[in-house]
Amino acid sequence: MLKKKKFTREVAIVGAGMSKFGIFPEKTSRDLFVEAFKELRASIDKGFDPKEIDALYIANFSSDLFEGQCHTAPIMADWIGQVPKPATRIENACASGGVALRQALIAIASGIYDIVLVGGTEKMSNLPTEKVTDTLAAAGDILYETNCGLTFPGLYANMATAHMERYGTKVEHLMKVGIKNHRNGALNPKAQFNISIFDIMKNKQEKAIREGKPVPDWEDELSFMKDNSANPVIAWPLRLFDCSPITDGAACVLLVGGEIARNFTDHPIYIIGSGQGSDHSLPERREQTSLRSIREAAFQAYEMAGLKPKDIDFAEVHDCFTIAEIIAIEDLGFFPPGYGPKAIDEGITQRNGSKPINPSGGLKAKGHPIGASGIGQVIEIFYQLRGEAGPRQIPNVRIGLTHNVGTTGGSGVVHIYERRS
Amino acid sequence: MLKKKKFTREVAIVGAGMSKFGIFPEKTSRDLFVEAFKELRASIDKGFDPKEIDALYIANFSSDLFEGQCHTAPIMADWIGQVPKPATRIENACASGGVALRQALIAIASGIYDIVLVGGTEKMSNLPTEKVTDTLAAAGDILYETNCGLTFPGLYANMATAHMERYGTKVEHLMKVGIKNHRNGALNPKAQFNISIFDIMKNKQEKAIREGKPVPDWEDELSFMKDNSANPVIAWPLRLFDCSPITDGAACVLLVGGEIARNFTDHPIYIIGSGQGSDHSLPERREQTSLRSIREAAFQAYEMAGLKPKDIDFAEVHDCFTIAEIIAIEDLGFFPPGYGPKAIDEGITQRNGSKPINPSGGLKAKGHPIGASGIGQVIEIFYQLRGEAGPRQIPNVRIGLTHNVGTTGGSGVVHIYERRS
Repeated sequence: MLKKKKFTREVAIVGAGMSKFGIFPEKTSRDLFVEAFKELRASIDKGFDPKEIDALYIANFSSDLFEGQCHTAPIMADWIGQVPKPATRIENACASGGVALRQALIAIASGIYDIVLVGGTEKMSNLPTEKVTDTLAAAGDILYETNCGLTFPGLYANMATAHMERYGTKVEHLMKVGIKNHRNGALNPKAQFNISIFDIMKNKQEKAIREGKPVPDWEDELSFMKDNSANPVIAWPLRLFDCSPITDGAACVLLVGGEIARNFTDHPIYIIGSGQGSDHSLPERREQTSLRSIREAAFQAYEMAGLKPKDIDFAEVHDCFTIAEIIAIEDLGFFPPGYGPKAIDEGITQRNGSKPINPSGGLKAKGHPIGASGIGQVIEIFYQLRGEAGPRQIPNVRIGLTHNVGTTGGSGVVHIYERRS
Repeated sequence: MLKKKKFTREVAIVGAGMSKFGIFPEKTSRDLFVEAFKELRASIDKGFDPKEIDALYIANFSSDLFEGQCHTAPIMADWIGQVPKPATRIENACASGGVALRQALIAIASGIYDIVLVGGTEKMSNLPTEKVTDTLAAAGDILYETNCGLTFPGLYANMATAHMERYGTKVEHLMKVGIKNHRNGALNPKAQFNISIFDIMKNKQEKAIREGKPVPDWEDELSFMKDNSANPVIAWPLRLFDCSPITDGAACVLLVGGEIARNFTDHPIYIIGSGQGSDHSLPERREQTSLRSIREAAFQAYEMAGLKPKDIDFAEVHDCFTIAEIIAIEDLGFFPPGYGPKAIDEGITQRNGSKPINPSGGLKAKGHPIGASGIGQVIEIFYQLRGEAGPRQIPNVRIGLTHNVGTTGGSGVVHIYERRS
């Protein structure tokens, strides 16, 4: 475990913006990033001159493979008028956003910068679906995972069956994660799927009636989720609605030294804990039901914040697959290993539960534009802690947490946030 | 220009290692990285336990496109036994190494880490040459450069003709850069081409004699360089020997907080200046004979170090093409704009001149494994400043500088180093 460390300078988030997450054939990464940045500018209560930005950190998984564009950081800087400032690209697969946030935090703490823009982008829909699957698989270990035929759903299916074997987890638990996250996403206008499973089911039934076709006899969301035609198996036990979608999107947040935060807003959100870890590829690990990189990152973040899992009011976790959310809430110490499914059965992780998870809809419903996903999580925390999350607001939250995973945990990063006003 | 900043904590380099640079069909990036790390371990005078490393920064341009492997940082960490430590990939095209060094410097200065490994890798030879050219072109702006047919040699040829037009620079000046760097590379056993142009010429002449073929009548290195069959035009005025090669390689350095540096070695090398900048794509720029990102980065680095260009004893600059070295020595303030060619004519940049440039052989002769190149530069500085550069040692050097460029200057990064013992 990393030595216990605190930064000597506080860092706060003072602004946030994101594009709508979805499929946008007519847009490039830079278009989406400009949209996100415009919203960020408007979000800063006391106004702000973009000239004040000292540097940019840009999270991107592989615009190399998705758009044929490497070296994205200076392009993003250019398109929002930031040349000649330092612009650095961070890539840690699906954890790129969280890792970029950490680098910005470190840089402000070092004193070299005072005001840093952290952004993330991904434009995935340029490629056909099977090519996207190949591209995502390139984030696994090509010698020991990918070349053995393991796609991303395949890797997480392995983890899901291991969890079922060890703890008696059922497919219904996975499905309930998807149902919850779609329910939350239905309240998030930026979400790619801002619709509940219930409404998807009703829409399909009504469409069948209109078209004079046989009406599917789904009684409730779980019966819909168990129907092979409505929710086909992708890699057992994972079905379509266990998998996060292919998404285009961009997101950014503005970080500043704590001592100047109130020049920008009366409601800054402080980043009080940060941790990052790495892990072997899946076949090398002793266990598949927990991510060592995340346990390491969570330990560092809790130590830095001086907090325990019980102190966290709510969290945005990396539900690239539903099983990932179950493993997340166990690895973060919210529930003991194997008790995630029980917590889900009891409704604890729902928006009105005692430990709400993924109020934004998570990657599952909000969408998963890889480089932008980790920043999208931060944005939900920012709005929730400021009480500005609209119809999906969780009342009286003061401490939030983000959990961002690269591949099956090759990279893991955790941050803890605090509202003080 | 960025506000004048100093770090509150000193950072020193205490160890360095690199693989041989070259073409290694049987090796992967991780194999090369392990080689580099083994040499680094052996380089640390007072010994060191790799368990002490707090975090890793890994520079890599696009193993995505070269090897089909994204998310390289945790893999490199794993292969040198560093799981579960934080491992972050930095990508800024050909400037990835310099930018990664800067992030490590910032992280140590922040106090979050004490001991950081900064590495770089690239395995380019997996692809056929024309595919490598396409891949490198993806570091340009795909909308405004690449899609207009501009390859990398094409972009730098534009800059070369602009320099010729504006300042009267001749092709002979370009050729003299290549001749000098091959002469230096001939003294560097790690160089891909550790052979002088003179020896290449003599070898070809002797081969012709042995084979009973007509003997080329090259009188000296310049006559060889001007021969279209020996040195064909790639993108006029750039010929084969104006271009850095396709290279496989890895390199790494160990950075520590200044206060603990002497626990590792009696001869630490301090990083006393750091700067980073960005720029528009080439068609958007007002001028093509100077890089704004580098002028910005150099300004920051000189300010931080409290030094002027005249104080720099020698430098490793980013000679991806010979014209790039000419622009570099002008942008760094070693010579006024347009006076780089004159300095070359006068031999000032040769190893025994008053401002030696690229004693390692530069990217031209040492090789250009993109993610590793920026770290390779640092390693030359480390050995030169410690007086350990063997037959290519420059006598009595105390201050060195590295200059690392992404694409045509979309990213630019400059560091200044000092020997104190």
